[in-house]
Amino acid sequence: MKFRVTGTDPNSQARTGVLETPHGQIQTPVFMPVATAGAVKTLAPWELSEVGAEIILGNTYHLHLRPGAELIAKRGGYSQWTRWGGPVLTDSGGYQAYSLGATRAKSAKTTNDGVRFYSHIDGSKHEFTPESVLDIQDKLGSDIVMPLDDCPPIEASRKRVESAVIRTREWATRSIEHWQKNSYGADGRALFGIVQGGLFEDLRQQSLRDIQDLPFDGIAVGGVAIASEGKEKINKAVEYVAASLDPSRPHYLMGVGYPDDIVRMVAQGFDMFDCVLPTRLARHGVFWTTNLRQHNLMNAQFKHDATPLDPECRCRICQTFTREYLRHLYATGETLAGRALSFHNLSVTLRLMERLRESISRGTLTTDFAPYL
Amino acid sequence: MKFRVTGTDPNSQARTGVLETPHGQIQTPVFMPVATAGAVKTLAPWELSEVGAEIILGNTYHLHLRPGAELIAKRGGYSQWTRWGGPVLTDSGGYQAYSLGATRAKSAKTTNDGVRFYSHIDGSKHEFTPESVLDIQDKLGSDIVMPLDDCPPIEASRKRVESAVIRTREWATRSIEHWQKNSYGADGRALFGIVQGGLFEDLRQQSLRDIQDLPFDGIAVGGVAIASEGKEKINKAVEYVAASLDPSRPHYLMGVGYPDDIVRMVAQGFDMFDCVLPTRLARHGVFWTTNLRQHNLMNAQFKHDATPLDPECRCRICQTFTREYLRHLYATGETLAGRALSFHNLSVTLRLMERLRESISRGTLTTDFAPYL
Repeated sequence: MKFRVTGTDPNSQARTGVLETPHGQIQTPVFMPVATAGAVKTLAPWELSEVGAEIILGNTYHLHLRPGAELIAKRGGYSQWTRWGGPVLTDSGGYQAYSLGATRAKSAKTTNDGVRFYSHIDGSKHEFTPESVLDIQDKLGSDIVMPLDDCPPIEASRKRVESAVIRTREWATRSIEHWQKNSYGADGRALFGIVQGGLFEDLRQQSLRDIQDLPFDGIAVGGVAIASEGKEKINKAVEYVAASLDPSRPHYLMGVGYPDDIVRMVAQGFDMFDCVLPTRLARHGVFWTTNLRQHNLMNAQFKHDATPLDPECRCRICQTFTREYLRHLYATGETLAGRALSFHNLSVTLRLMERLRESISRGTLTTDFAPYL
Repeated sequence: MKFRVTGTDPNSQARTGVLETPHGQIQTPVFMPVATAGAVKTLAPWELSEVGAEIILGNTYHLHLRPGAELIAKRGGYSQWTRWGGPVLTDSGGYQAYSLGATRAKSAKTTNDGVRFYSHIDGSKHEFTPESVLDIQDKLGSDIVMPLDDCPPIEASRKRVESAVIRTREWATRSIEHWQKNSYGADGRALFGIVQGGLFEDLRQQSLRDIQDLPFDGIAVGGVAIASEGKEKINKAVEYVAASLDPSRPHYLMGVGYPDDIVRMVAQGFDMFDCVLPTRLARHGVFWTTNLRQHNLMNAQFKHDATPLDPECRCRICQTFTREYLRHLYATGETLAGRALSFHNLSVTLRLMERLRESISRGTLTTDFAPYL
């Protein structure tokens, strides 16, 4: 994989860049919609192109269990199997294996060798190792591959986080060895390293050194997924490492986030983001607007409101439907509502990324986005 | 409303025609997708155009309760409110008022004056009369309006069906009077009459005479909805009236049906059909093919099947996705599956209508569709 920085903001750590992958180029900073089980929920691939997505995420745990990496490999990889056609990043599946991979009787277990888990679908026994998750992602045909890491809850004790940092380093080393031995990167695919360390400054910095010492193509910061954590904790965990990130490699903040989080983290030098929120909130009747505010469609004020979701938005949904009509669909249980809001929220998010790139290019990020920084 | 027959099949009662409505022309025989609460389930209006829909159905009961006809009138009518933009037929809501309009304590009641019912949403008391349902449909801006009728279950006793036929005639007379008094048809909107009579030949014929004696713009046959009835019963009920239908008016078979039912009923002289099946079955993983066969996506044979749902179909879904991929989406609970199958099933149905029109025009209906007649 090739990454080049194409511009830097004079008043922050923000930069623009271009990532080259086997399935095409990506402009950074980039937001990656999440397609857990083979689709960005409710949306068709042509709609992902229409909202401006350049790369989507796939989930190794879910795809490994169903339909299995062998079938996807036979069909030319995840991008071809889903008909998305563009670049794909897959996570290692480790987090889901640990959190979902249990039956009533048996829970998942992390050892030094990997994660042993039980399918949440049929209870069958599986194991993810640093090596096996790379083999699986190779079959998935991922453009950007994530290694197995040990990701404790952000509230975990210092002792637990210490051991996670050590194990993450050991697994990272095994990942690099396996990656190189199999020449998985020969066709331009990338392997990123993941920084852990919870909320402990020294452990975050230790983990960052561990990961950056290895020849990973990019640096990811894990353990801060917005879905479960507060802004202050993200800020802290990120602050501990942001200034020391290797500027020559892309920086990926995993699982973040809300539009205003993205703005703040772009200013800290992050290039890549993913989050289920734009589509998950949409299915719960929540929509975002260009001014980075969040609204609930069921709010009574929208009951008789014939304006678009977001008067500043040019997406197909805002050019077509009214708030009151979409609210009616949501209230009556029509899934078209969640679909429309998913499309719109992704449009707002991807348009935000475009605006951020434009501001960085102009060198005006900190003034253009002052209210959010 | 203007209706003209443009072609007749030499070997059956089938004909082609053109219906002119305030929102545009409709080619018959026509299939009308059902948009119960404001949307054809899972689909956007531009997709209805893409599958070839020329008119959709709205449900007066549901729209009366939510969001209310007043709001829809203020927004320019149902076609504009939903952004469909094309012609709309609305039912009277009587059937839903009777079947859904009850609380735990109070049930709906039909009297000579109309149907008194209770909202299934908030228990509020409402009444539909032959006059009020026309006023509501006027506010909805419907192109084709259906009158209140008394629609007993097809298994009802002769006595019950006799009284339904009488009441339907009385309500039909009141409907015509109210329609004319208010000049509701002045701008080209149509009022259809509904024939009842259950499975009794003489009562069907009586009801047909009652309805055709009145100046309705079209003749509908009710009480045979495919969703609840078997083919033999539909055949019988329709046979009793088909030969005596006034050829100068359009013939609408309400709630039918499966593709093969449609073929048979087009040959009996019916011009208009509606049914929830293409989209309801789709949401349950069932798809149709051009050869008029029905398939269940969860069938094991589709697990490793990289062909389209229907190799003969040119719809966007069949040009994009494979059976195995859509099966995977359905198995993992992704609503994109139901959406894709809805689009496809409607494509198959509307393409069938096109093929039927072509065959009638050529005079080859009975040979082209011999296996289904």
